[in-house]
Amino acid sequence: MAKGKKLTTRAENYPEWYNELVKKADLAENSEVRGCMVIKPYGYAIWERMQAILDQMFKDTGHVNAYFPLFIPKSFLSREADHVEGFAKECAVVTHHRLMASPDGKGVVVDPSAKLEEELIVRPTSETIIWSTYRNWIQSYRDLPLLINQWANVVRWELRTRMFLRTTEFLWQEGHTAHATSEEAIEEAERMLGVYAEFAENTLAIPVIQGLKTERERFAGALETYCIEGLMQDGKALQAGTSHYLGQNFAKAFDVRFANKDNKEEFVWATSWGVSTRLMGALIMTHSDDEGLVLPPVLAPFQLVIVPIYRQDDEKELVLNKVAELAAELKAAGIRVKLDDDDTKKPGWKFAEWELKGVPIRLAVGPRDLANGKIEVARRDTKTKEVQDLDDTFIERMKKLLDEIQFSIYERAKNFREENTTQVDSWEEFKAQLDKPVPGFIFAHWDGTTETEEKIQAETKATIRCIPIGNPAEEGVCIYSGKPSRQRVMFAKAY
Amino acid sequence: MAKGKKLTTRAENYPEWYNELVKKADLAENSEVRGCMVIKPYGYAIWERMQAILDQMFKDTGHVNAYFPLFIPKSFLSREADHVEGFAKECAVVTHHRLMASPDGKGVVVDPSAKLEEELIVRPTSETIIWSTYRNWIQSYRDLPLLINQWANVVRWELRTRMFLRTTEFLWQEGHTAHATSEEAIEEAERMLGVYAEFAENTLAIPVIQGLKTERERFAGALETYCIEGLMQDGKALQAGTSHYLGQNFAKAFDVRFANKDNKEEFVWATSWGVSTRLMGALIMTHSDDEGLVLPPVLAPFQLVIVPIYRQDDEKELVLNKVAELAAELKAAGIRVKLDDDDTKKPGWKFAEWELKGVPIRLAVGPRDLANGKIEVARRDTKTKEVQDLDDTFIERMKKLLDEIQFSIYERAKNFREENTTQVDSWEEFKAQLDKPVPGFIFAHWDGTTETEEKIQAETKATIRCIPIGNPAEEGVCIYSGKPSRQRVMFAKAY
Repeated sequence: MAKGKKLTTRAENYPEWYNELVKKADLAENSEVRGCMVIKPYGYAIWERMQAILDQMFKDTGHVNAYFPLFIPKSFLSREADHVEGFAKECAVVTHHRLMASPDGKGVVVDPSAKLEEELIVRPTSETIIWSTYRNWIQSYRDLPLLINQWANVVRWELRTRMFLRTTEFLWQEGHTAHATSEEAIEEAERMLGVYAEFAENTLAIPVIQGLKTERERFAGALETYCIEGLMQDGKALQAGTSHYLGQNFAKAFDVRFANKDNKEEFVWATSWGVSTRLMGALIMTHSDDEGLVLPPVLAPFQLVIVPIYRQDDEKELVLNKVAELAAELKAAGIRVKLDDDDTKKPGWKFAEWELKGVPIRLAVGPRDLANGKIEVARRDTKTKEVQDLDDTFIERMKKLLDEIQFSIYERAKNFREENTTQVDSWEEFKAQLDKPVPGFIFAHWDGTTETEEKIQAETKATIRCIPIGNPAEEGVCIYSGKPSRQRVMFAKAY
Repeated sequence: MAKGKKLTTRAENYPEWYNELVKKADLAENSEVRGCMVIKPYGYAIWERMQAILDQMFKDTGHVNAYFPLFIPKSFLSREADHVEGFAKECAVVTHHRLMASPDGKGVVVDPSAKLEEELIVRPTSETIIWSTYRNWIQSYRDLPLLINQWANVVRWELRTRMFLRTTEFLWQEGHTAHATSEEAIEEAERMLGVYAEFAENTLAIPVIQGLKTERERFAGALETYCIEGLMQDGKALQAGTSHYLGQNFAKAFDVRFANKDNKEEFVWATSWGVSTRLMGALIMTHSDDEGLVLPPVLAPFQLVIVPIYRQDDEKELVLNKVAELAAELKAAGIRVKLDDDDTKKPGWKFAEWELKGVPIRLAVGPRDLANGKIEVARRDTKTKEVQDLDDTFIERMKKLLDEIQFSIYERAKNFREENTTQVDSWEEFKAQLDKPVPGFIFAHWDGTTETEEKIQAETKATIRCIPIGNPAEEGVCIYSGKPSRQRVMFAKAY
C-alpha cells in the first residue's frame, strides 16, 4: 500500500514533523488507550539495541537485574513525604479485582463485591516497593553494596502526552542501590551519570551536558539529582537520564538499617537512576531531518540497505545474484544488512522508504554498474552519493564508513549545540535569546533561590536545566533579581 | 550472615520443599503485595538466559518484537464472548487516576473526582488490545503474515498463588500472529509448539509431551490449543507452554479484514502463543533434589564454581594465584565461572551454598592437590566427586562434562517420566494409580465428552492434560462411562 512519505518540514512545524516522523517511520503510534503508545517493531528493534548495550554497561559496572512487583500498596507511597507529594497526582489506581456480567445484559461491569481492602498503585517508580524489600535483605555491612537494576514498565498519568517523550505508560530501567556510606552512594550516583553520558555520546551520538538539578527540579525524595541534558534541533533541551543520591530518606521511611563494621546500627544510603523510552525521542530529535529518521549506525536495526535495479528479466537474475552474494559478504563481516528485493515496489519508492527509516548506508546496484565493477553508495546523514569500485576493499570501506557516520553525526550535533550555546548578562538579553527561533542553552547568573527560578519560568517558560559538573566559579549578578551570584547556570526551554 | 541451608525433603513434604528451595536458593520470594513475587537476582539471571535463547529462536523463525499497552479498556475485553468469560473473574481494574491528601491528614486517599470514564483492565493477555491495533495495520494480503512477539508482564488475580507456578503478576512472552489462510495459521501454531518443545528439551532439559487440549481446557477464545506437558518429580503434570489457533474469532471481534489475492475481503486468521516465568517452576521441580537446585548447564548463571582451600597464609597465596589463573583460562574457553574466594566463609559452607544454588560443576583446590597436579571435580547432578589431573586437557574436559551433565539430567528426567507413565483400562485401576505417591501420566480411554471429563476431575482431581500429537488410534471403552473411544488420552493431576 502506498504511503505518503513526505513529512511536514521542521521549519514549517517542528512538533508536527516529529509526530509524522514517528508514525511514518514505523517507530510508534498512539494506541486506543489514552496516553499509551504502541511501540512498533521497527521502533522496538532500536529500543532493544539500546537495552542490550546499556544492560552490558550496567553489568560491567557490577550490577545485576531483578524484578519487583508492578503494584505498590497505597500506604507505601505515603511513607516518604516528598515522594508521595511528587507522584500522588498522576497515579493509576487499582481498586477492584473482578468484573461481572452487567445486570442489563450488555458487556461487563466492575464487581462491587471485589473491592480491594487497600488500593494498589501501578508503579510510577519503584523506590517504595524496593526499599520495603531491601529491609529483609540487608542486615550487615557485608550485605552491602546492593547493586540492582530492573527493566520494567511504569505508569504516570500525564495530562499531555507525546509519543516517546511523555506517555502514560513507558518502558525504562531503574537502578536501586544500597550502600554503607554516604560517600559510596554519591560515588555510585556519579558513576551511573557517567555511564549514561558515555552511552548518550557513544551510542546515541548525542552530546550531553552533565550536571546537577536545582533543589526545585530534584526527584521527589532525592537529596541530589544528577542529569544529562541534550539540545534538540529546535533549540529546546531534553533531559535524557537522571541519577539520584537519595541519602537515607528511603532507608528511614522503610526502616532499613545495617550493622556497620563497628557493629553499630545505621540507616542505609541509597541511589536510584533511570533512563526510558524517552531516549527514542532524544535520538529522533537530535539527528533526523525533513526526509525522515537519521540513525547512528551502532543502533540501526539495518545499517546498510541494498536496492537492486533492473528492467528486463535477464538483468534481474544477474543483479539479484550479485546483490545476494554481496549481502552475504557484508553480513559475514558483521554488518546488519537489508536486501530489499521486493518485486512489487519501484527503486524510487524504496529509496524514500529507507531514507524515512534512517538506514545509514544505501547501495544501489544496476546491470551497467555491475558490468563496470561499480556500485552507488549513498550516505543517509549527508545525503551524498558516490559511485565506488566494487573491489576487494569494498566491505572494509563500508565498515569504516559506518564508523565515520557514527562519528560524523555526533560531531554535527556537537557543533549545533556549540553554535546554540550563549552567555547572557541581562534580563533583556535573556528574553531576546529565548525569543529566537533556536533559543538553545543559555548560561546566565542566578541568585540561587527557588523564588527567582519560579519567576523566571513563569515569565519565560525557561527552566534551569542544570548546574554543570565542573562549572567554573564566576562572580556576577543574577539576571533577574540583580542579587549576587557565584556561578552561571544553564537555562533552556525544555521538553 | 549464616543461613539454615537444610531443606525439608521432597519425601517429607514436596510443596514445602519447593517453597524453601525457591527462597533459600535466592530465586524469588513473596512480596508484600498479595500474590506478587520478587524475582531475586539469581533467579532473574536464569530467566534472562531463558529469554535470550527463546528470543533468538523466535527471531530465527521470522518474528519481531513490539510493545503494546499494559491497559485494556474494559469494553475491549467484552468483544470476544469466550475471552471475557475466561478472564473477567480475575482482573485488576484501574478505576481512578489520582490520589489526594486524606481529609483526616493521614496519608493519601483516592481522589473521587479522578474517576475514569471507562475502567482499564491490567492486561491478563493481550489479544484484544493487539487485534484492535492490527485493524489499522492490515489491509491487504501483502501485509500478511504479521509475526509479532511481546515480552511483558501480565496480571491475573489468582486466588491461590505459588511462586513462579501461579502468581498474580508474572512475566511472559506472547506471540500474536496474523495470517491470510487458516492453513497458514495452523502451521504457525504448530511451528511455535515445536519451538517450545525444542526449547524445553534442549535448554531446560525437560522432556515434554506435545499435544492438543480438549475443548474444555482450551484458551478462552481459541479454536485449538496446543501444549507441552512435563512430568514433575511428585508425579504431577505441569503445562509448560501453549500455542493457540484462534481462527477468525479475534479478527471478527475487532473487524480485522484484508483484501485477498482475488481482491475479496476476508477476516484475518490468528494465532497466539506464550511461555512465562512458570518455566522456572518447571525447571526447579524437574531436576532439583533434597540438597537444592540442579541447573542445566545451558541455563546456569555460573556453570562452574571454584572453591580454594588453604590454612596458612603461604598456602593461601599459592592457592589463590593458581585458582585465579585457572578461572581465567576457563572463562577464556567460554565457561561461566564463579571463583568463590570470600575469606569470611569456610569451604564447607561454600560447598553447601553452591549445591543449594545448583552450580553444575564444583572444583575444590588445596595446596596438596596442587603440588600433585590434581584437582577435585564434583558434579552437582550425580553428587559424585573425582580427583582429576590438572593437565593440558582439563579445560576441554570441563566443557565436555558440562555437555554431559546437560544430556544426563535430560535423560534422567526422561527415564523418570517413562517409569511413571502407565496405561490403565478400568476406573478402579485409574483411581488406584492416582492414589499412588507418584501418579504420573496415565493413558486411558475417554468417551470424548466434556461431561465425562468434568466428572472424572470432580471425583479424582485428575484432568486430561492433552491428546498427544500423533496419538495412535485404538478402539476401546471409556474408563468412566463405558462408552466407545477411539484413542487413549493423557490424564494426570496437574499444577
